[in-house]
Amino acid sequence: MSFMDKDFLLNTPAAKKLFHDYAEKCPIIDYHCHISPKEIYENLHYESITQVWLGGDHYKWRLMRCAGVPEEYITGKNTSAHDKFMKWAEVVGKAIGNPLYHWSHLELRRFFGYDGVLNAKTAEEVWNLCNEKLHRDDFGVRDLINMSNVETICTTDDPIDDLNWHEKIAADKSFKTKVIPAWRPDKAMNIEKITWPEYIAQLEKVSGVKIDSFANLKKAISKRMDYFGERGCKLSDHGVNDVTCNPASSEKEIEDIFSSRLSGKTLDDVALDKFKTEFMLFVASEYNKRNWVMQIHYGCRRDNNIGMFNKLGPDTGFDCVNTFAPSTGVAKFLGEVQNRNSLPKTILYSLNGNDNSAIDTICGCFQADVIPGVSKIQHGSAWWFEDHFEGMTAHFKSLASLGYLAGFIGMLTDSRSFLSYPRHEYFRRILCRLFGQWVEDGFYPEDYETLGEIVQNISYNNAKKYFNF
Amino acid sequence: MSFMDKDFLLNTPAAKKLFHDYAEKCPIIDYHCHISPKEIYENLHYESITQVWLGGDHYKWRLMRCAGVPEEYITGKNTSAHDKFMKWAEVVGKAIGNPLYHWSHLELRRFFGYDGVLNAKTAEEVWNLCNEKLHRDDFGVRDLINMSNVETICTTDDPIDDLNWHEKIAADKSFKTKVIPAWRPDKAMNIEKITWPEYIAQLEKVSGVKIDSFANLKKAISKRMDYFGERGCKLSDHGVNDVTCNPASSEKEIEDIFSSRLSGKTLDDVALDKFKTEFMLFVASEYNKRNWVMQIHYGCRRDNNIGMFNKLGPDTGFDCVNTFAPSTGVAKFLGEVQNRNSLPKTILYSLNGNDNSAIDTICGCFQADVIPGVSKIQHGSAWWFEDHFEGMTAHFKSLASLGYLAGFIGMLTDSRSFLSYPRHEYFRRILCRLFGQWVEDGFYPEDYETLGEIVQNISYNNAKKYFNF
Amino acid sequence: MSFMDKDFLLNTPAAKKLFHDYAEKCPIIDYHCHISPKEIYENLHYESITQVWLGGDHYKWRLMRCAGVPEEYITGKNTSAHDKFMKWAEVVGKAIGNPLYHWSHLELRRFFGYDGVLNAKTAEEVWNLCNEKLHRDDFGVRDLINMSNVETICTTDDPIDDLNWHEKIAADKSFKTKVIPAWRPDKAMNIEKITWPEYIAQLEKVSGVKIDSFANLKKAISKRMDYFGERGCKLSDHGVNDVTCNPASSEKEIEDIFSSRLSGKTLDDVALDKFKTEFMLFVASEYNKRNWVMQIHYGCRRDNNIGMFNKLGPDTGFDCVNTFAPSTGVAKFLGEVQNRNSLPKTILYSLNGNDNSAIDTICGCFQADVIPGVSKIQHGSAWWFEDHFEGMTAHFKSLASLGYLAGFIGMLTDSRSFLSYPRHEYFRRILCRLFGQWVEDGFYPEDYETLGEIVQNISYNNAKKYFNF
Repeated sequence: MSFMDKDFLLNTPAAKKLFHDYAEKCPIIDYHCHISPKEIYENLHYESITQVWLGGDHYKWRLMRCAGVPEEYITGKNTSAHDKFMKWAEVVGKAIGNPLYHWSHLELRRFFGYDGVLNAKTAEEVWNLCNEKLHRDDFGVRDLINMSNVETICTTDDPIDDLNWHEKIAADKSFKTKVIPAWRPDKAMNIEKITWPEYIAQLEKVSGVKIDSFANLKKAISKRMDYFGERGCKLSDHGVNDVTCNPASSEKEIEDIFSSRLSGKTLDDVALDKFKTEFMLFVASEYNKRNWVMQIHYGCRRDNNIGMFNKLGPDTGFDCVNTFAPSTGVAKFLGEVQNRNSLPKTILYSLNGNDNSAIDTICGCFQADVIPGVSKIQHGSAWWFEDHFEGMTAHFKSLASLGYLAGFIGMLTDSRSFLSYPRHEYFRRILCRLFGQWVEDGFYPEDYETLGEIVQNISYNNAKKYFNF
Repeated sequence: MSFMDKDFLLNTPAAKKLFHDYAEKCPIIDYHCHISPKEIYENLHYESITQVWLGGDHYKWRLMRCAGVPEEYITGKNTSAHDKFMKWAEVVGKAIGNPLYHWSHLELRRFFGYDGVLNAKTAEEVWNLCNEKLHRDDFGVRDLINMSNVETICTTDDPIDDLNWHEKIAADKSFKTKVIPAWRPDKAMNIEKITWPEYIAQLEKVSGVKIDSFANLKKAISKRMDYFGERGCKLSDHGVNDVTCNPASSEKEIEDIFSSRLSGKTLDDVALDKFKTEFMLFVASEYNKRNWVMQIHYGCRRDNNIGMFNKLGPDTGFDCVNTFAPSTGVAKFLGEVQNRNSLPKTILYSLNGNDNSAIDTICGCFQADVIPGVSKIQHGSAWWFEDHFEGMTAHFKSLASLGYLAGFIGMLTDSRSFLSYPRHEYFRRILCRLFGQWVEDGFYPEDYETLGEIVQNISYNNAKKYFNF
Repeated sequence: MSFMDKDFLLNTPAAKKLFHDYAEKCPIIDYHCHISPKEIYENLHYESITQVWLGGDHYKWRLMRCAGVPEEYITGKNTSAHDKFMKWAEVVGKAIGNPLYHWSHLELRRFFGYDGVLNAKTAEEVWNLCNEKLHRDDFGVRDLINMSNVETICTTDDPIDDLNWHEKIAADKSFKTKVIPAWRPDKAMNIEKITWPEYIAQLEKVSGVKIDSFANLKKAISKRMDYFGERGCKLSDHGVNDVTCNPASSEKEIEDIFSSRLSGKTLDDVALDKFKTEFMLFVASEYNKRNWVMQIHYGCRRDNNIGMFNKLGPDTGFDCVNTFAPSTGVAKFLGEVQNRNSLPKTILYSLNGNDNSAIDTICGCFQADVIPGVSKIQHGSAWWFEDHFEGMTAHFKSLASLGYLAGFIGMLTDSRSFLSYPRHEYFRRILCRLFGQWVEDGFYPEDYETLGEIVQNISYNNAKKYFNF
């Protein structure tokens, strides 16, 4: 097969048919990402391909560092956008087997109409071509979204956010894509952070609730959830190191922990664990009441390089997989929520691909009939460091073997970039490749009506029903 | 390849030859399962395909729950057998990549002669066909066993069981398959359970030994082992959360722990661990004396959904993989037994496929010459949540890479169903597929004499020698 | 494909081209192994193929034990070399899927010109053929090295070693291969061992430093590093159970721990951990000053079979994978070194293949521009129990997906045998097979200029630059 033609990744007749006749045309629901609603509303235009690709993409920064590129050409202030791009092109050109190789070329094809290969030799040509397009009027971020057939986007938002930009986008009838906020209350839960009191002060202000007790923290949060819900929010997200389950023995105990922290004391690990457990138990039950989805991302160890963290801050390429993520905590936590009859629709994501079978079997313990044909508890799509050909294939196989792949809600970009939508295409091609292989191998009948329906459900319909969009 | 024809899973000429000329004809030794000897003796006939397939099979229940089927159609009392089957057919019809898809269709082909595909459309046809056959006189469970060419079955039995049904089967010369008890003393070991004292009272009664000390518990157990041995028992089985090794420092210490529990006190974790270690060390040495095989199943976290556990009890589909199963405990335990010169033939099974290489390398530390060409310490066949195409293939590759695949004792069903024997066929096809691929790829010479011998050894001969059947 | 012809493992045109036109001709840099410089200097000749293959190779011993061979035919004194070889031939002949099957046949082809298959039937023929060759004058270990096109070898040496044999080899201009010492200070660090005081006494003698404090231990070590450096040393190696990071709170604390041990006391786990952390922090900074590479091997649980350990000692086939190797310790340790601005070029090896993605993402957190195109922090080639087709392929895919495969320094034998160099060929074939597959599948363009360059860099150039040979 030639590189990245129309049948990219589709190595069987069944795979080609499933992708081109079924998957390709489905609109995109990007239910989890980190793009800026402000930039959508203002229809941001980019100065250069370096700004889009290298402005804040720590995946690419990591790869450049792995290739021995000086930091000055990555995040430095004293090199030009042009020279940064040249370095990137040289590195990515040899990044055989890396998802960035495929993502970058898909983006060049879908947005810029470039069918060649990006490397040190072609870098100048690609630089000119991309920048020429980016400077056109019809190349703002709204145009990129439109080109990608995106029906719904869920951003990631803090409880104290006023959602002003979401309101403005909703009011602008010229833009058809729905842009919905998602609730991410990590800052309210991370009681150990030195910035927490300051955050709580802000939360007091926007909620109008004096947060002098855990009970009142819950009140404030609940009010903000109402606010989010009124603006279309249907899902939450949590980024945690580990999922644990250590409920407080009484209301008094959790209030004492809370007071202790309020008075400026440092909590020990057990107290911390109890606080976080109670926080999660509370929000889970609130999500359930509101029919919101709870997303939990875990298994990451962040900011490992202290020197670089001090220079560049978080989310700059210095995180790693945490292998110490026993399934016990996740199973106990969901068990506890279930036991209180307050388990919402839930999506679990671990950064450690070794957790696949644990997650799939945990999900299986807490399923219930919410949407016919769609699993209530979902094993989220291969996340971040697992979001590549091997990781996605392993996720599909594990979910198929241990759960119900046909009931999966599919892909999300988790991205900060408006050029990332071809990752949905990448996901769909990999899914169709696997299905095609299974048909070719006689693992499943060559019944395109059923196969096509499953492919379209995973690509689009299941998510639409699951989130109630 | 078309779906599930005679060359199902056999995608090379070498695979076809190895399966059809060598593997296919081997009788089945099903050395670990959970079927009822009473039902064999009484030659149970089924009322409907729902009773066979959905009566107690928590694998299928889980899949239905994952697909959003209401519990009423799974374990409920107010839906008919017919309606339950309709729901199942709809779900399994779309369960692409799930072992239940393959198992169900193999069972339909081998027992019911149905060559079609099961789904919502064909459900009624299959329902009628299966029930018609099941109602025939020659469709009792003995017939199912005979159709499957099963030579030996080992059930799973409690030390207090009188093995009455085994005796009756043995006395009935009209039934050729050997049905042998296997010793599973979990209830005697699980000292933390509230039901333990009651169990010990029963054990006292059947053994005739007053169990007022650990020494006497050992005596009672030993007497029951004699009883089992006289009735053909050649292997044991243990289901444990984790394998640990924390021997008591003295006889007095273990007796104190035992007395403490007898007197109604709750043991702390350390005491519990010591008791279980001493129990395991004792039974291991007894197995070794008797030339019995010790099976250990670990890495499961059970009954995670408390509400459903309260409704349906254990083994109803609410267990998950426990990822926290460090190899240290297993290695230390086997080391301790070995050091006491009392290590029996042993089979290790972990529910976590990530443990493959740890188990294979642990096995390698304790091998010895017991049966020429067969490994004394075995990495048990991919178990439960791992018992599918991907899991079995991973198990074969790990065992081949790190141990001696040719010395493997092969497959068991671990099943509660009399229709599960085609899982041996599934296993053999996957094995032949892998061997065929290795021949095709030039990884191993196309020497059918040797390959055929290895395939037949893994399918049949090794188990026969290993268990001394 | 026929078994092990010239296109062994090369199943696509691209794979064949990449191997034969690019990889095959690269010299070998074997930067980590355990061969004896004395044997090289003295150009050891072997008595028999049993001496070479079974004299000390615990990989083969394990396999024989797994196949139920009596220990007498493995390490016993009362069986002949001939009879041991017969047993080995029988076992390896059926070892389908085991790397020893491939390694043995590659060695037979490359050194002995034998194109057949080794098994019980051909054992006698192979025995005669190999021994005839081994008895020739031009079959000493130098000849084996020359036949293998080995440019550089790094042995593994203790700080107290006088490196006498390295000096002699260097002075002998008739031998072209560079033989360089590598620094492995495990004995100095393993303060808990009963043999430690005796070792420290020897270190005092060779260093001329009285080791009465941790400060003076560091002085002694530093002097020995100078000594090694003067003799060409450019890299170190550490074998540790786990990587942890628990620095002492003050100089006084670490000196107190050291004094306590010197005075004969047993250190508790925390003190031990602190000592080892401080030791590693110190040597890491010394490596960095000297531009040496730091290798860390972890994730092994050693000497599990106490009885056999007492009979045969360490490194005799009784080690296993330790699954409890959380990434936290590794990430914290590298973070701490980095924070002190003393992180040297580093290679991480875990015995647990499940750690692949954790290691690749940890490496990514600490990269820096040292050599253009080569990663400063390396995920070491699949090690020991992972050093087989499946393990190497998984390593390549993980490194490619999460890091920069093109910047990888490639293979080493880690071997005690002079016949192991074909493992480099095996590695290169597996690499070319994967690249060929990626080209065939359209994952990467069919651009042989770039692909060939990447293959040659991984096979040879990257290591040469990285170690500064």
